[in-house]
Amino acid sequence: MRTLKLTLAYDGTNYVGWQRQDNGVSIQEVLEDAFRTLVGGEAPTLAGASRTDAGVHARGQVASVSATLDLSPISVQRALNVRLPADIRVLAVEEAPPGFHARAFSVAKTYRYRIATGAVLSPFDRLFVWHHPIPKDVARMRHAADALVGRHDFASFQAAGTAVIATVRTIHRLAVVEAADEIVIDIEGDGFLRHMVRAIAGTLAEIGTGTRPADGMPAILGARDRRAAGTTAPACGLTLMAVRY
Amino acid sequence: MRTLKLTLAYDGTNYVGWQRQDNGVSIQEVLEDAFRTLVGGEAPTLAGASRTDAGVHARGQVASVSATLDLSPISVQRALNVRLPADIRVLAVEEAPPGFHARAFSVAKTYRYRIATGAVLSPFDRLFVWHHPIPKDVARMRHAADALVGRHDFASFQAAGTAVIATVRTIHRLAVVEAADEIVIDIEGDGFLRHMVRAIAGTLAEIGTGTRPADGMPAILGARDRRAAGTTAPACGLTLMAVRY
Repeated sequence: MRTLKLTLAYDGTNYVGWQRQDNGVSIQEVLEDAFRTLVGGEAPTLAGASRTDAGVHARGQVASVSATLDLSPISVQRALNVRLPADIRVLAVEEAPPGFHARAFSVAKTYRYRIATGAVLSPFDRLFVWHHPIPKDVARMRHAADALVGRHDFASFQAAGTAVIATVRTIHRLAVVEAADEIVIDIEGDGFLRHMVRAIAGTLAEIGTGTRPADGMPAILGARDRRAAGTTAPACGLTLMAVRY
Repeated sequence: MRTLKLTLAYDGTNYVGWQRQDNGVSIQEVLEDAFRTLVGGEAPTLAGASRTDAGVHARGQVASVSATLDLSPISVQRALNVRLPADIRVLAVEEAPPGFHARAFSVAKTYRYRIATGAVLSPFDRLFVWHHPIPKDVARMRHAADALVGRHDFASFQAAGTAVIATVRTIHRLAVVEAADEIVIDIEGDGFLRHMVRAIAGTLAEIGTGTRPADGMPAILGARDRRAAGTTAPACGLTLMAVRY
């Protein structure tokens, strides 16, 4: 029995998210189906570092799997890529210590949220950004973002109805960068609650347009109430960039 | 009756190309259908500067149309974008002189051909590049490309079976640029024969891998025979970048 660490990229457009679900095809299911053909009969379970939502993309998702198989890591990578659809790719396969678990062992994750601000949405970006063509003051967004960096209770940014009680997380970095017709939000933290990045992106967008005060983040955090924060930005704008161990 | 100049971007993946055809949905057809709803009843014909093939993309296609309608150019743009699918966008609409024709009046076109050279094809690039992961010597490709710049008979780079007899064209610029895991070919000329850019890209790739000599371009041009040049690179790697008037 070996444990392997897989680094993955995917265009999440056509999937119900990372996790297996009854209502559609998941990334996990497609990967496990491809993996099964390598191990013959056995049905190994892949653990993903992040349970990305439907429509969320990844450039550096990490998954772990324990299985009995004779192939070298590079052969596993090639064999999986031959079997997978082109919108899911295995970027790397490494031997991991026994007991390694992609979710439990991760110490930090980085997400990127892209907001397209131009009047016309590029056909080439349409599946990978949130088109929100309302002028935004990036300096206001940066000021508000700074208040989220550090260790805080992020209950106000957790999807309503979620049962998770331990809602304290640490954000190491939250950068708001302006490019041509685009605002990019890069966020790194030790962990994220359900919809947390999207709720932060939606709230920052409202601060950028002036709908919300730029200095309102401490009050939002203090409220510990989803209704205190802004809208949940659409899934398609979000990409999991990297997982650190 | 007014004449309008439309600048267009599209992801060509799901279309049979620019031109109306019986075997599937064309960009022209979708645009004309959208336009018809603005002029009420009339069925205006759009002339595209380039008859992009099935799967070829555009970031700066230009089309002309003559029609009777009361809307301002910006209103035409907005009304079309509301009616069009997200993979086709009108980037600009301008008033053009009577008789303006997007194809007949163009003086130069620029195309970009992207070759992905990494072992693993990114899911985000998969529809917009040619995945050809064989190591290439870009200096050799540049040397060969230089021989194509200028006024030449490009009959050897025209799709076999094409009836066009006037096969002399002028290439103003042909740049081969290497980026991370990618080779980008930018080509500007006064006009292009059917499949010409793709045949040039395929031939340059063969020169890059060493399958063909780097100094063989003059002989290929001199042969005036499609069999003298290399393979036709896939449509998905090609994007029409701009049309000059």
